[in-house]
Amino acid sequence: MLTFSLVATDGPARAGLITTPHGTARTPAFMAVATLGGLKGVTADHAEAIGQEFMLANTYHLALRPGSARVRALGGLHAFASWRGPMLTDSGGYQVFSLAANRTVDDDGVSFRSHLDGSPLRLTPEESIRIQRELGADVIMAFDECPPSDAPRAEVERACRRTAVWLERSVAAWRADGPHGGAAVQALYAIVQGGIHPDLRAASARDALRHDLPGHAVGGLAVGEGLAERNAVLDAVVPILPEGKPRYLMGVGTPLDLVEAVARGIDQFDCVLPTRMGRHGIAYTDDGPLRLKRAEHAGDAAPIDADTPGPAHRVSRGYIHHLLKSGEILGGTLLSIHNLAYYRRLTARMRAAIRAGRFAAFADGFRARYVDDRADAAGEA
Amino acid sequence: MLTFSLVATDGPARAGLITTPHGTARTPAFMAVATLGGLKGVTADHAEAIGQEFMLANTYHLALRPGSARVRALGGLHAFASWRGPMLTDSGGYQVFSLAANRTVDDDGVSFRSHLDGSPLRLTPEESIRIQRELGADVIMAFDECPPSDAPRAEVERACRRTAVWLERSVAAWRADGPHGGAAVQALYAIVQGGIHPDLRAASARDALRHDLPGHAVGGLAVGEGLAERNAVLDAVVPILPEGKPRYLMGVGTPLDLVEAVARGIDQFDCVLPTRMGRHGIAYTDDGPLRLKRAEHAGDAAPIDADTPGPAHRVSRGYIHHLLKSGEILGGTLLSIHNLAYYRRLTARMRAAIRAGRFAAFADGFRARYVDDRADAAGEA
Repeated sequence: MLTFSLVATDGPARAGLITTPHGTARTPAFMAVATLGGLKGVTADHAEAIGQEFMLANTYHLALRPGSARVRALGGLHAFASWRGPMLTDSGGYQVFSLAANRTVDDDGVSFRSHLDGSPLRLTPEESIRIQRELGADVIMAFDECPPSDAPRAEVERACRRTAVWLERSVAAWRADGPHGGAAVQALYAIVQGGIHPDLRAASARDALRHDLPGHAVGGLAVGEGLAERNAVLDAVVPILPEGKPRYLMGVGTPLDLVEAVARGIDQFDCVLPTRMGRHGIAYTDDGPLRLKRAEHAGDAAPIDADTPGPAHRVSRGYIHHLLKSGEILGGTLLSIHNLAYYRRLTARMRAAIRAGRFAAFADGFRARYVDDRADAAGEA
Repeated sequence: MLTFSLVATDGPARAGLITTPHGTARTPAFMAVATLGGLKGVTADHAEAIGQEFMLANTYHLALRPGSARVRALGGLHAFASWRGPMLTDSGGYQVFSLAANRTVDDDGVSFRSHLDGSPLRLTPEESIRIQRELGADVIMAFDECPPSDAPRAEVERACRRTAVWLERSVAAWRADGPHGGAAVQALYAIVQGGIHPDLRAASARDALRHDLPGHAVGGLAVGEGLAERNAVLDAVVPILPEGKPRYLMGVGTPLDLVEAVARGIDQFDCVLPTRMGRHGIAYTDDGPLRLKRAEHAGDAAPIDADTPGPAHRVSRGYIHHLLKSGEILGGTLLSIHNLAYYRRLTARMRAAIRAGRFAAFADGFRARYVDDRADAAGEA
């Protein structure tokens, strides 16, 4: 099962090792998102080539296609995705609340319609854990309710109560005997909810701690809140979480988001941005996102990012610009590879800075250099 | 410049080495098609990983986007495409005759409209060579007229006369002094035309031989003729071509097509099939094309092709089926990588058989096993 060891701390920032049945990931760890069991446009051997260690797959998507029984029959998630390293599946909850149609939540679970064909489906804590046990990732997630970022406080409170009950049921399903997976081979993380309300967040964290699980996640962020609100949530939650277990901030984020969260004691991340923004023509660099569709890059013989090695380093910005303008998917693939390599190098640099006791200086330097003109980004994506 | 050395012959079949300023390619050689300077969905390092040696890029497409001056400014075609090995550009003629709109041919050249934006363009032998010199491939092609496969004999005769005149002009442009490329660093191949008429083909081949060029190509095939017609053309043309120079069959073909043409003395090929059919869900194997969208593959844990190693070998047919059914471009990318690896292995096996003096047995065994139900293929593509 999962073990976590702290290698170094530097203020709240931590460097550690998450060891799973499929190997060890160094933290801070960024998990690349293989939604349907594959990174969008990026092969597993390229992910290995850039040093990717941890991979995430989406329970909701895999449950719809090809179904967890099929994944199981093809050897389980690792064999299916041909990924040798650690893997995590989410609970499906977030997708149910963000993608599915005709959703009705009751105390027992969620009924909804598939975003693909409208067929009626139901997810409960027991069903989410059953699917995740069948998929067979190293880390699985408790089933939670994720209210929208602008939900009234009363709705967030109700969601927190449900999340606490559903956590108990998730834990029971995880610990139960069964044909696949379970507590002996898979680690269960609890998810802290509570919206942007620090007191609800703290209460939700204390609910989670009662179960002494292998890890803890902060959910319901990266859903539209501001950076100050997110930081306030992390400042309220992280100090409550035990030192000896990994802390996972779900769905976050940009390179700057990662630096800010590591500065507050987060160990683990996942986000679609590296591959999604890659497909949209954007390369992450220490100077911020580089929008390679812009005409200024057409004649640029420089590499995408001189500091980031990997399979995308050999091509020029001008070549990428040409591929993007010509509608060649190779452009998005090369940028996705670059972005994953950039995220990998960023987490490695944070880890090195923490181990050297100079994380605050690294973070200050990063903040000073990184410029993200988000208005433009939204316009071009 | 280019040198060709014969390593072994086995009946008409030949094993050789084509040496260029960017390294050596073993023949029989299959050139992967990087239309716009990149293989569709496949990175250059994956092409290297599967042993790809020779790459082709399309003059017509690159002339429209990003323009040969831009390619030149970005370091020339090799730097642009980040391809270290031998490269060839076609003359643009085939695309003008198959893609462009409002085409009018006169004795001096071809006027047409861009298939992208309808802008008026003109290609002549001198202009094609000028563009190819600016692109800077190791091998460039003479500008020819390629009539449709069902053209009346009189039209094919007229096209052959033009092709002969345009070859003279191509040779003069290639030998001329100029700012880029030219006969000192690039090899020019002549193109034999003549449709399905063996006597016109033989006459066109004799026109080509007058110029003592580094290589010869057979054009105007793989445009709808039957295999028997194609073989008759090769039987008429190849014996006329000099032994000591490479023979390139343009735009061909399926794995079986390659075996049949090598059996008739062809050394060099290019075709979009490996990547195009990969994107359409088809994997080439010794048993013929495998259509991985079919339901029978959904639960298949076997690799795409147990005999073909490479980056696509680690995934199952069931995984590819899932990716294709889910619309994930990764499925087409993995199949494209597999197909290029399969073609590379096929040419290597033919070369080994020729060197061992057992090519006829290899070809017989291949023909007996390979089954291509083309009606199905067309329906699914």
